[in-house]
Amino acid sequence: MIENLTVIGPGLIGGSLIRALKENNGVKNVTACSRNMNNLDKALKLGVIDTAIADTATAVREADIVVIATPVGAILEVFKTIKDQLKPQAVVTDVGSVKMSLIRELQAEYGDVPQFFVPAHPVAGTEKSGVEASFASLFADRKVILTPTANTDPDSLKRVRDMWEMTGAKVIEMDGEWHDIILSATSHLPHVLAYALVTQLSSMQESEDIFTLAAGGFRDFSRIASSDATMWRDICLSNTDKIREMLKSYQLQLAKMDKMLKEQDSEGLYKVFANAKKVRDAHFE
Amino acid sequence: MIENLTVIGPGLIGGSLIRALKENNGVKNVTACSRNMNNLDKALKLGVIDTAIADTATAVREADIVVIATPVGAILEVFKTIKDQLKPQAVVTDVGSVKMSLIRELQAEYGDVPQFFVPAHPVAGTEKSGVEASFASLFADRKVILTPTANTDPDSLKRVRDMWEMTGAKVIEMDGEWHDIILSATSHLPHVLAYALVTQLSSMQESEDIFTLAAGGFRDFSRIASSDATMWRDICLSNTDKIREMLKSYQLQLAKMDKMLKEQDSEGLYKVFANAKKVRDAHFE
Repeated sequence: MIENLTVIGPGLIGGSLIRALKENNGVKNVTACSRNMNNLDKALKLGVIDTAIADTATAVREADIVVIATPVGAILEVFKTIKDQLKPQAVVTDVGSVKMSLIRELQAEYGDVPQFFVPAHPVAGTEKSGVEASFASLFADRKVILTPTANTDPDSLKRVRDMWEMTGAKVIEMDGEWHDIILSATSHLPHVLAYALVTQLSSMQESEDIFTLAAGGFRDFSRIASSDATMWRDICLSNTDKIREMLKSYQLQLAKMDKMLKEQDSEGLYKVFANAKKVRDAHFE
Repeated sequence: MIENLTVIGPGLIGGSLIRALKENNGVKNVTACSRNMNNLDKALKLGVIDTAIADTATAVREADIVVIATPVGAILEVFKTIKDQLKPQAVVTDVGSVKMSLIRELQAEYGDVPQFFVPAHPVAGTEKSGVEASFASLFADRKVILTPTANTDPDSLKRVRDMWEMTGAKVIEMDGEWHDIILSATSHLPHVLAYALVTQLSSMQESEDIFTLAAGGFRDFSRIASSDATMWRDICLSNTDKIREMLKSYQLQLAKMDKMLKEQDSEGLYKVFANAKKVRDAHFE
């Protein structure tokens, strides 16, 4: 059991982590701080956290584990603020969707990623944000990816692994570079694509009819375009090269399909659609 | 109440229409035929239809309303087969996702869209197909779009409207051209985009990890890529120009976003994301 947990930025992810740990007797005291006092207040009122502390440095002093659950772009600043306030055995981890930018920032700042910092990414979420959207089962059977470096302390790694396993997640380890490639494909590119479609359609003169007449397919396809803008701006700014590479390859695929449309290539279109359906059906219900 | 209804191709849409009508005492006898004898057999065994007839021409002889629920590319052939077999007061309608290609085909074949043919499109569905995926509430609170022409008989139009209203759908009328523009934006383009993404990712060397590590966002985004390949090939071949126009404008939007990524345009990305979120949140839960 974690004696004292501090979550910095207890939104959908941080809040759900706390709820899952509490439900499984995995944590005793939860302290949180946030730039967003309104969200912090909600977290207290909902009983998700036990103590709210406005000052980040103060909030981590008793912590055994600190989870930085802010958007990617704020993690380094938070870490710099808390680093010298921590107890000797404290472990720090994050939940960011991009790992290499942070790893490189920490290396640039400290010569290496500090031993007690375990880069992590729970691959789970919804399009909602804020602590009021959090729920205990968010991580059940989901993957949590840890991307330790050569410098990561094995005991710190184990403590972060144990914490996530208590939420029902499957914890795996992976190289940070590989993580960022995989996530650019499964998550970052799709978000860019969905945001682009909603942007395009909202600027059309037919836009009112379009959104009124959209059915379930469009609702599901565009769901991720309801995700938090700050979070996704930060991800795009942090994993830019890999996202652009994915996007380039996607644009080539679109050009191929446009050619098939232009040439009325019945067989070609059928093959692409049938194969995509087969692949997707093999992986999802 | 419809005395005799014939559905040609009783899959997800045709089957759900029949179930909804039966649940609301909207139909007495349902006959169906299909090229897919396996599906026809299932429809009988599930009790969705009362009579299965293999021969299309024979299947419509007693019908008061005939619903052609085949993929778009097969509708004209079916209509040519049944036209001279119909009772004098029979009405024919379809459920295709593209309206102008059929309207033009009928005009080319008969000089005008026959008075008793009501072009229709229920804007509802799932990524599943086949009669076993059908359910009575599929059309509840969904839109059904009728695109009558100047030649459409008002009584035929009313009978098709009444039929769909019995399913709980909201029936609206619209110009066929406008319908095809709206649907290219809300449905046809998103399907092409989802098929393209699954195709791209499945061809990558990281593909196994990609599909294993994909989370809920990707599952929702790519759901429509599990749709029936024949149906979507036909739609792409029938609404080609409008889909290509939408695709072109989408590619321009992607190029704009790629430029923002390249230039690390933090403010620009935030604005696009925040605005898209606002628009989507305003239209969906």
